[in-house]
Amino acid sequence: MKNVFGGALTLTLFGESHGPMIGATLDGLAPGMEVSGDSIRAALDLRRPRGKISTARREADPFEIVSGVFNGKTTGTPLTILIPNGDTKSADYRYGTARPSHADLTAYCKYHGFEDYRGGGHFSGRLTAALTAVCAPLRDALEKKGVMIGTHILALGGVRDRAFDEDRYDRDIASLRNRYFPVLEDGAEEAMVRRIEEAGAAGDSVGGILETAVIGVPAGLGEPFFDSVESCLAHAVFSVPAVKGVEFGAGFRFADMTGSEANDPIRVSPEGGFQTETNHNGGINGGITNGMPILMRTAVKPTPSIRIPQDTVNFLTGENVTTEGGGRHDPAVVHRARIVVDSLTAFVLADLMTGRFGTDDLAQGRTI
Amino acid sequence: MKNVFGGALTLTLFGESHGPMIGATLDGLAPGMEVSGDSIRAALDLRRPRGKISTARREADPFEIVSGVFNGKTTGTPLTILIPNGDTKSADYRYGTARPSHADLTAYCKYHGFEDYRGGGHFSGRLTAALTAVCAPLRDALEKKGVMIGTHILALGGVRDRAFDEDRYDRDIASLRNRYFPVLEDGAEEAMVRRIEEAGAAGDSVGGILETAVIGVPAGLGEPFFDSVESCLAHAVFSVPAVKGVEFGAGFRFADMTGSEANDPIRVSPEGGFQTETNHNGGINGGITNGMPILMRTAVKPTPSIRIPQDTVNFLTGENVTTEGGGRHDPAVVHRARIVVDSLTAFVLADLMTGRFGTDDLAQGRTI
Amino acid sequence: MKNVFGGALTLTLFGESHGPMIGATLDGLAPGMEVSGDSIRAALDLRRPRGKISTARREADPFEIVSGVFNGKTTGTPLTILIPNGDTKSADYRYGTARPSHADLTAYCKYHGFEDYRGGGHFSGRLTAALTAVCAPLRDALEKKGVMIGTHILALGGVRDRAFDEDRYDRDIASLRNRYFPVLEDGAEEAMVRRIEEAGAAGDSVGGILETAVIGVPAGLGEPFFDSVESCLAHAVFSVPAVKGVEFGAGFRFADMTGSEANDPIRVSPEGGFQTETNHNGGINGGITNGMPILMRTAVKPTPSIRIPQDTVNFLTGENVTTEGGGRHDPAVVHRARIVVDSLTAFVLADLMTGRFGTDDLAQGRTI
Amino acid sequence: MKNVFGGALTLTLFGESHGPMIGATLDGLAPGMEVSGDSIRAALDLRRPRGKISTARREADPFEIVSGVFNGKTTGTPLTILIPNGDTKSADYRYGTARPSHADLTAYCKYHGFEDYRGGGHFSGRLTAALTAVCAPLRDALEKKGVMIGTHILALGGVRDRAFDEDRYDRDIASLRNRYFPVLEDGAEEAMVRRIEEAGAAGDSVGGILETAVIGVPAGLGEPFFDSVESCLAHAVFSVPAVKGVEFGAGFRFADMTGSEANDPIRVSPEGGFQTETNHNGGINGGITNGMPILMRTAVKPTPSIRIPQDTVNFLTGENVTTEGGGRHDPAVVHRARIVVDSLTAFVLADLMTGRFGTDDLAQGRTI
Repeated sequence: MKNVFGGALTLTLFGESHGPMIGATLDGLAPGMEVSGDSIRAALDLRRPRGKISTARREADPFEIVSGVFNGKTTGTPLTILIPNGDTKSADYRYGTARPSHADLTAYCKYHGFEDYRGGGHFSGRLTAALTAVCAPLRDALEKKGVMIGTHILALGGVRDRAFDEDRYDRDIASLRNRYFPVLEDGAEEAMVRRIEEAGAAGDSVGGILETAVIGVPAGLGEPFFDSVESCLAHAVFSVPAVKGVEFGAGFRFADMTGSEANDPIRVSPEGGFQTETNHNGGINGGITNGMPILMRTAVKPTPSIRIPQDTVNFLTGENVTTEGGGRHDPAVVHRARIVVDSLTAFVLADLMTGRFGTDDLAQGRTI
Repeated sequence: MKNVFGGALTLTLFGESHGPMIGATLDGLAPGMEVSGDSIRAALDLRRPRGKISTARREADPFEIVSGVFNGKTTGTPLTILIPNGDTKSADYRYGTARPSHADLTAYCKYHGFEDYRGGGHFSGRLTAALTAVCAPLRDALEKKGVMIGTHILALGGVRDRAFDEDRYDRDIASLRNRYFPVLEDGAEEAMVRRIEEAGAAGDSVGGILETAVIGVPAGLGEPFFDSVESCLAHAVFSVPAVKGVEFGAGFRFADMTGSEANDPIRVSPEGGFQTETNHNGGINGGITNGMPILMRTAVKPTPSIRIPQDTVNFLTGENVTTEGGGRHDPAVVHRARIVVDSLTAFVLADLMTGRFGTDDLAQGRTI
Repeated sequence: MKNVFGGALTLTLFGESHGPMIGATLDGLAPGMEVSGDSIRAALDLRRPRGKISTARREADPFEIVSGVFNGKTTGTPLTILIPNGDTKSADYRYGTARPSHADLTAYCKYHGFEDYRGGGHFSGRLTAALTAVCAPLRDALEKKGVMIGTHILALGGVRDRAFDEDRYDRDIASLRNRYFPVLEDGAEEAMVRRIEEAGAAGDSVGGILETAVIGVPAGLGEPFFDSVESCLAHAVFSVPAVKGVEFGAGFRFADMTGSEANDPIRVSPEGGFQTETNHNGGINGGITNGMPILMRTAVKPTPSIRIPQDTVNFLTGENVTTEGGGRHDPAVVHRARIVVDSLTAFVLADLMTGRFGTDDLAQGRTI
Repeated sequence: MKNVFGGALTLTLFGESHGPMIGATLDGLAPGMEVSGDSIRAALDLRRPRGKISTARREADPFEIVSGVFNGKTTGTPLTILIPNGDTKSADYRYGTARPSHADLTAYCKYHGFEDYRGGGHFSGRLTAALTAVCAPLRDALEKKGVMIGTHILALGGVRDRAFDEDRYDRDIASLRNRYFPVLEDGAEEAMVRRIEEAGAAGDSVGGILETAVIGVPAGLGEPFFDSVESCLAHAVFSVPAVKGVEFGAGFRFADMTGSEANDPIRVSPEGGFQTETNHNGGINGGITNGMPILMRTAVKPTPSIRIPQDTVNFLTGENVTTEGGGRHDPAVVHRARIVVDSLTAFVLADLMTGRFGTDDLAQGRTI
């Protein structure tokens, strides 16, 4: 598959950055799930560029639900949301000059020159707006089941936020819910924004790391081999442009640990059931959730569009050239990528739960 | 899907650690690919435990090709290889005591007590032997096309190997080809083996990082969104038990870089075509191969089976207990995981190439 | 999967009969295929109701291509076409009364009352307009390769057309190309239309049989087991509302034949290659095309909407009631279903050819 | 996909007629389903050739369960069953001469001469033995839920059996359960067997029609478009070699009916719920089950292998030749195909129920 993803649920994306609109279709939904326009609006607003730290492209992101909703609830047939493209300046883009670290050259190799190159075309991060919109009802449905997803910026341009408080995930996740610039520690936002502004002023950009926690996930989701929870989440998250690394729990730090340090001791939980004393495995053992919080970290590379001159080629003429980075761009997309990671995390968990508990499950409240 | 994976090619695994046999089926293969028993044997030997640094379980891994090969070549119908389970000691395993960081408890949550718990059952790393066997002809076919895959141990228990030599990937990859303990730097093997032996002597285990390079991959493979090359490779590699992190190119180091540092300048190549001066993107832009080497790093957690007493629970009685780690085990599996990562990398690339160039392509020599 | 279908190509449908619009997304297309608005228009016109023999609902079917086309050609990313819903009269539909042989009751069982019941909702035959639009470029691409698809009404309400002329498939198929009421024999149209008008006047409806021929299909498409060409075509065609039977070649007549009558003798073809003297197998042996014309017949049930009073139930009140068939409807849909069958046939063959010959193949002219 | 099929459940077939063994893997099963060796044995015995009416090839069909069963129940991980190939006479087959209506020539076109041609290779009907074995536990699980599947020979070589008694499906289905030659009417077996023997004596073969009824299926299974129940069942059944037609309910007879004749009146059922007075729709409306019996008819062509001389070609030499039909064969396979149709019907329904009700459902008794 290609622009279609999923198992019990199926997510399809379409559109190009400078075409008339973008859109997404979500199939396999339970009938009777609430679809809140406010919730979709709020999710889109977290992804929109704002203030000096973002692209000058203003995306109002009006959206239209054109399929799968009746009387404010899902019908069970495909949910499709369209988002018109408004403020495009196609003249900014010149075809032939490959912007370094962009998909210009690879798109040419794959599509032989037929690609819509304007604004990144189908490769544009703009596609994630449609994805975000269509996944908002999934996040709402999961929340009713007690599955809460939260992502903060753990690091950006050398500045670090504190990690999730292992004793109060719920509070930390709640604090991130409607926060445009999602950090946990006092002062982290200011320091990071300053770093973005510095980069922007220099015509440069910065990368970062997002950290995601999910609580309330029932134990027993995922598969022992090819559809491990790690496999499914990583597949989804690595589809986001600019993501270049994904780790769970201790992740790459496992390399320096011994088994006796790394293993999570298990204890009878005071509230019944079992829990682990540490969570180095990030809530997943043998590919399957164990009921502890899922912990995932995602590396986001610096926005490739910069205004500093760069060496590159014109792939039509076959010549070395210098580019100065046309088009509008963001000095950082880490904060905007957060809701996309949240949305894809919601999609994967909703997909696994639908497969596990059947197609009506998502419309039902807490069942576990 | 679950134990079935792929698009144009499909890989299915079956069997349990202490059942009569394990096996794998590979469907969608080109007719006329050579299937070399020696090559399968060599791949399995790289995965087998050897010497003091491995489990005492001796797996001779005799294999039988039972489908899809005729006169030494693939027929184009499913290739199935079976590997009997020989040296099993089921009495070593007691059901109910959850080994920390193992799948015992999650399997119980998912399978309600019907799981075959002996030796890890279907969760056992042993399943990867069948996967390795069935992917060996894919690696051979890719090599005939000039696609060379090599993986070394970049780090293990605090000891590091040098990275791939960016000027001589071909030589480094060739040096790893038949090396049981795959490192690039003189002395790295000795230091790492010593570290494994120390851990083993202490009843403990160590984790590590594998680094994979692939050269000769044609530009233009992969998809802009859900089936980015990163998504497909990560999906495959995260299915391997013990893998907890995957990154491409600069990966998590992107978090501290600026765009001007991170972007890979593009130049006209002296041999024709284009190349990048650095390879921070690990050969992939916008989810699509750019013709540069693919670079992937995989974090492997320490083997959870250790002989040191650990706090855990008996999930049948609901009581806190202490385990000392029954069964035989490895103080390290990083070196053995290498051929599994190579095999899955071969599978994903062969899958993408078959989708791109059609079902006969893999049986043909270099076409690009 | 559900509203998503395919392998190398993927077709997704969305929308409801009385929602703002319907749409379809086609993914996996070769870059560089021509997309002709005229061709899409012509296909939609063959599906539109016309004259006295059709529903009074007038569907102008303006369409908008919103993704996947640039400078008149496919980009290789998803092709999405939207068709707004215009002339809807939702008040015609009363919820609770199950129209016999419609999906009202089964939709209620599946969607628990959340379904959009207006005009049949997602179950409406109207969805096939989007499917028809998005498949038109596939039919054009296949024609450039010499693959010609034609369907005529073999039987309708007791009236029969002649079968395809086995010596001149090309001429018969060409004659059907732009014919709104697709029959081969002189006088068949008049007799069938009279039958439809009689049924319409009586408030009743009629069913029929469509016969499809495809010439120019390369030998060697399809799979020996689960993706036999028959399996793939039948899967697609049985998704069309009202289709209740599919057969290939001699089909159900095989029941009364002996092997010596049924087997198709093979001979060296005067033009090179091989051909069969008869074509009882409808161009498919062992699930795989043999190069002879594919022959498929599709049974279409009478339109369930009739004006004659019928016994039924109100599933909300649980009472027996009588319905007189609300809403507008067609006394026959057989002729309109023809382009849908053509479109799905094109989709399945294009999917199989893309899988077999790779993703660029469809944009290329005759290659075989 | 190719030799892999399904959605929530996945069925993979492997092996060739004259290889060491054939096998099948079923993934996605609920943990805790009973796996009865007797039941598998009984199913295989219904497929085995017996007496004068079958091939002289004696297939004892010893089977081995090698994965997915522990203590007599499914573990929830892949179920794999192997069946060794015993009595093969490969020398009977000469490569190059295309047996008419067989897959010899199409296999050559697809696999370029690399196919295992001995005994039909992967195209052999023998593959259905593995399929039958692995689906037996599904049929048992469905029966515990009250879903009963039965198939009889409606027609064979011009002789007809009576249709199912619409008032006593349960009794008719039960009577077919262990009957090797499955007919409903007294005397039908004798007349049909005589017809087979006549054909066999003449070196010829006969075709027929199988009629399948399924009772106890919950309403609300299936999807409105691409995964209609008709689509899923037809896809599965058309994968069986020799099947050339599938129809549901009135099927092709709809062509001569009016809507007022064809529509099934709905009434409140005396036992609660709703039922239809006729069942022309074969238990399916809008692609979704309505709770009435599913009725499917399958056309099976005469066995292509006959001893009567036939015109054909040698595709290696490119010459016209005459074949007399080498190898052993059946004058009829209709009766043996019945358990294969039953097995695939069970697979499709189990797949739809697992998707609808979740992965644990199949291990539970009647839930609806």
